[in-house]
Amino acid sequence: MMDFPTVAAFEAALRDLPIPDVTAVDAARARQAQLTKPAGSLGRLEEIAIFLAGWQGQEKPALNKARMAIFAGNHGVTAHGVSAFPPEVTVQMVHNFEAGGAAINALAGAAGMELTVTALDLDRPTNDFTADAAMSEEECLQALSQGAAVVDSTLDLLAVGEMGIGNSTAAAALCARSLGGSAAHWVGPGTGVDDTGIARKVGAIDTALAFHANAPMTPFETLRRVGGREIAAIAGAIITARHAHVPVVLDGFISCSSLAPIASAFPAITEHCIAGHRSAEPGHIRLLDRLGLKPLLELDMRLGEGSGAAVAVAVIRSALAAHNGMATFAEAGVSAA
Amino acid sequence: MMDFPTVAAFEAALRDLPIPDVTAVDAARARQAQLTKPAGSLGRLEEIAIFLAGWQGQEKPALNKARMAIFAGNHGVTAHGVSAFPPEVTVQMVHNFEAGGAAINALAGAAGMELTVTALDLDRPTNDFTADAAMSEEECLQALSQGAAVVDSTLDLLAVGEMGIGNSTAAAALCARSLGGSAAHWVGPGTGVDDTGIARKVGAIDTALAFHANAPMTPFETLRRVGGREIAAIAGAIITARHAHVPVVLDGFISCSSLAPIASAFPAITEHCIAGHRSAEPGHIRLLDRLGLKPLLELDMRLGEGSGAAVAVAVIRSALAAHNGMATFAEAGVSAA
Repeated sequence: MMDFPTVAAFEAALRDLPIPDVTAVDAARARQAQLTKPAGSLGRLEEIAIFLAGWQGQEKPALNKARMAIFAGNHGVTAHGVSAFPPEVTVQMVHNFEAGGAAINALAGAAGMELTVTALDLDRPTNDFTADAAMSEEECLQALSQGAAVVDSTLDLLAVGEMGIGNSTAAAALCARSLGGSAAHWVGPGTGVDDTGIARKVGAIDTALAFHANAPMTPFETLRRVGGREIAAIAGAIITARHAHVPVVLDGFISCSSLAPIASAFPAITEHCIAGHRSAEPGHIRLLDRLGLKPLLELDMRLGEGSGAAVAVAVIRSALAAHNGMATFAEAGVSAA
Repeated sequence: MMDFPTVAAFEAALRDLPIPDVTAVDAARARQAQLTKPAGSLGRLEEIAIFLAGWQGQEKPALNKARMAIFAGNHGVTAHGVSAFPPEVTVQMVHNFEAGGAAINALAGAAGMELTVTALDLDRPTNDFTADAAMSEEECLQALSQGAAVVDSTLDLLAVGEMGIGNSTAAAALCARSLGGSAAHWVGPGTGVDDTGIARKVGAIDTALAFHANAPMTPFETLRRVGGREIAAIAGAIITARHAHVPVVLDGFISCSSLAPIASAFPAITEHCIAGHRSAEPGHIRLLDRLGLKPLLELDMRLGEGSGAAVAVAVIRSALAAHNGMATFAEAGVSAA
């Protein structure tokens, strides 16, 4: 329904972000006030229902068609020893997703979501971004469009996730270049590297920031220079969902890092997004703070794959069950306060 | 399967609390280490699966039969103007539960739980505990046994909730008498009283603590003197679940307050319990800290009825889906770190 043939098309999409349906928001808020409970007593469940009403444009939002879209990419920066796992694990895990054996298969199933897996040129890792742009313009535009392709306007909700050995280094580089702060401020253990591994990640990012220092500070240039194909695809999916009025549930640090370069120029990009959880990766809460998003869950998860977002969708389903299924005070004959 | 005909029977049940199945705990932990994800990367989802394995006595725990048991009671202390709602709302809400219109109907349904509603002598409120014991020995024993009656050993999990206008005052009184601290330390807005209402709650509790000061400081005496029927029933259900090796998901401040008098003498009582959430009632997190329980969710909920516990069960279902459904590294042909 949307693609990104040119950098200008990408920028135009960001300059023209839709807003939620105010009438549906008001109707959902009025409904919450009439349900048989003290006003506000369902806390964030109420906020979520009203949020979804606004983006879906209906007083009673639905989750009939909720999609978990995961994207996989490989990273040239793995040459610097930034991950505890070898790069071939990316394609192995894609096969695991396709065979149904990964955490996200189980968690998306439990949340009643369909799952799409998009593997982006796994046999062609991005360039090592310490000494080159990770992607050419054409490669980055293609990744954005591959993300856009998972979205259509029949979706009630989209959640995004990723797989890519080395991509927590790309995510930290995106945050540092977009939002400032040292490499160390944004680097964490990822899938589980030790202090030496963390030092290697910091070193690679410092080198990359210096190498790209004179390049334009635009969302697109940052995304293509220090990002990765799966991260650009997530950005493309989120932007496309916005134009389709489909609310988005974000996963962890890497998924959210796709928004860092965009939000620094277009902060409204996060308005249709729910932060599904706060991951254990220390950069994640810092990034969420900068994006103005409050995580729904804090379960010490740090897997990626969309796993935290999928658990959040189970909670969102509960929020909608209450919003849509409860009786009003008048219907139930209960005295209001 | 259990009842509490005498105070001695209640105390005997607490002196003989079963422990989890260590073999099943070890098997579940070993399974988690083999699943296709970095070790520990599912955080609390892993802990929950291992916890349930221990109490259910099986490597792969199930949630085929999960029960939400809610208990309703009325409170003489409402004469002191401690609630924003009139006492007749208790029975009106029980009718709403039975008709399927309350939040807990929607949320238990979304979590795949069956729901039982036990109304305890609603036409006979407890005595005003500022000047009398809330319940006679017989009344308290009967409430404990009515709680026990919702448990049977076919259950995979029990969650508990409550409804009772005035019961956040009883809950705060139980905490203050059992755990120390001033009445003000344990009192909050409940369903939504203002500062004047909070002052009335504090006043009622201070009067009650003075009135009962010379009574024995045993779990039973505290429960019957400043508790309520629905709170005693929850205590009876939790103790009975322990003896049936059924794990329990706790709800908010009032549900958890049933454990305050018991845990001060028998701290192991919480070992088969998960704190489903942290409610917005300020005393709840203080109580959870004293019980040694870390809440699974923090969603600013403050409704009671088991609502927070029900949302937690949706997350627990996700935890078990991952634990039981994921492939191992060997099965999936994925390289371990």
